[in-house]
Amino acid sequence: MTKNKKVNAAILIIGNEILSGRTQDTNTSTIALWLNSIGVHIQEVRVIPDIEKTIVDTVNILRKLNDYVFTTGGIGPTHDDITAQSISKAFGLNYEIHKEAFKILESYYKSGEFNEGRQKMVWMPKDAKLILNPTSGAPGFSIENVFCLPGVPSILKSMLGGLKNEIVGGKPILSLTISLRTVESEIAQSLTKVQENNVDVEIGSYPFFQAGKLGVSIVIRSENQSKIDLCNEQILEFVKKKKIELVNR
Amino acid sequence: MTKNKKVNAAILIIGNEILSGRTQDTNTSTIALWLNSIGVHIQEVRVIPDIEKTIVDTVNILRKLNDYVFTTGGIGPTHDDITAQSISKAFGLNYEIHKEAFKILESYYKSGEFNEGRQKMVWMPKDAKLILNPTSGAPGFSIENVFCLPGVPSILKSMLGGLKNEIVGGKPILSLTISLRTVESEIAQSLTKVQENNVDVEIGSYPFFQAGKLGVSIVIRSENQSKIDLCNEQILEFVKKKKIELVNR
Repeated sequence: MTKNKKVNAAILIIGNEILSGRTQDTNTSTIALWLNSIGVHIQEVRVIPDIEKTIVDTVNILRKLNDYVFTTGGIGPTHDDITAQSISKAFGLNYEIHKEAFKILESYYKSGEFNEGRQKMVWMPKDAKLILNPTSGAPGFSIENVFCLPGVPSILKSMLGGLKNEIVGGKPILSLTISLRTVESEIAQSLTKVQENNVDVEIGSYPFFQAGKLGVSIVIRSENQSKIDLCNEQILEFVKKKKIELVNR
Repeated sequence: MTKNKKVNAAILIIGNEILSGRTQDTNTSTIALWLNSIGVHIQEVRVIPDIEKTIVDTVNILRKLNDYVFTTGGIGPTHDDITAQSISKAFGLNYEIHKEAFKILESYYKSGEFNEGRQKMVWMPKDAKLILNPTSGAPGFSIENVFCLPGVPSILKSMLGGLKNEIVGGKPILSLTISLRTVESEIAQSLTKVQENNVDVEIGSYPFFQAGKLGVSIVIRSENQSKIDLCNEQILEFVKKKKIELVNR
């Protein structure tokens, strides 16, 4: 991949607990912020249940549409952890004991504690590449462009650093936020003009409510700092003209 | 729809701010908990960017695969709010001023404040059905089985009540959580047996970390309380045998 090509990724959140509303997903934000910083754009996120066919089909769609796919969840020791076997099926690979993972967990646990439940976590697609886990031992893995991470947010977070050399991104995606004491409708037309004058910059407008007052955050995103600066100037120009107060946020 | 058929829905989160990691989506959980309470299962969630073609294509896939689709985001007054025009295209409907919505906002705002920015919010697919907004005036809308809600969590939440008579669900989905002072690998085999004995009940296992201690929450979900009770009994049986402590959570 060259530095000029836009590098894309999809995130696949696997887990009934997100679909039921019981658990709030936070991994999307963690992965997205990290990928943006190394120049990878998130094209889409999907949340799907712990159903093998659904996982197989979705992985096979997403891995063809994206440079990278990151899955979260389903690699633990219990019956509802079926990501590794599903990924094996998606790639038509044997689901088998990963020798290196076995060694890692054998030495991670005290003698006698590497029980059958824990041994499930070393079953992976044949020739999977391990993603080391500095928090709790059990590694994630990758096959081709699909990277499988755990669902527990703190563990997932600790594993991203180890992936840095595996992911070839483009230019880091930069962003600038301008927060204003106003409402969206007051600035909508002026902001549309700025967007029209800067078509290859992503400009988003997000209302917020802080300390009892309404406001709007304008977010400018681009790989090019000078394009961000130009938008910023044009926005500050109409902000000044309209006598809108800037807010620290 | 009869009470015996499983009623399914998809949630479509529209917004670059979620994909960039800047904003943590909380609407999925809000909508999912509410839908579960009225007997609607979430089959999948997708997060997509503010790109018209992507919105059109995704809505047209999801509305055919699901009894209901709920979109969030993109119905405000700024240039990046393109949900209403995209939904119009998805259904091949005119994108036009909705007279009832116009009247609502005309009387909601003080004289002179119903400016061009705000008037954008009354443009909708032809013959859209309004979803009233008790918080900030601007209504959402539905077309056939697609319900379009705003992205701001507090406003979205306030609008769900008004949808109750529009959604025909099945039996409410009930759940029971058993929290234990243990680790997943200790209970994995016993829990697998309970799942095998109760194939039509959804049993999930989720590790947690609370007050410096590890634990596991087992979540049992079904439309049938007696099936939940039976699983609960079987789980408490092995919990007692293994002398695992129950935790309040």
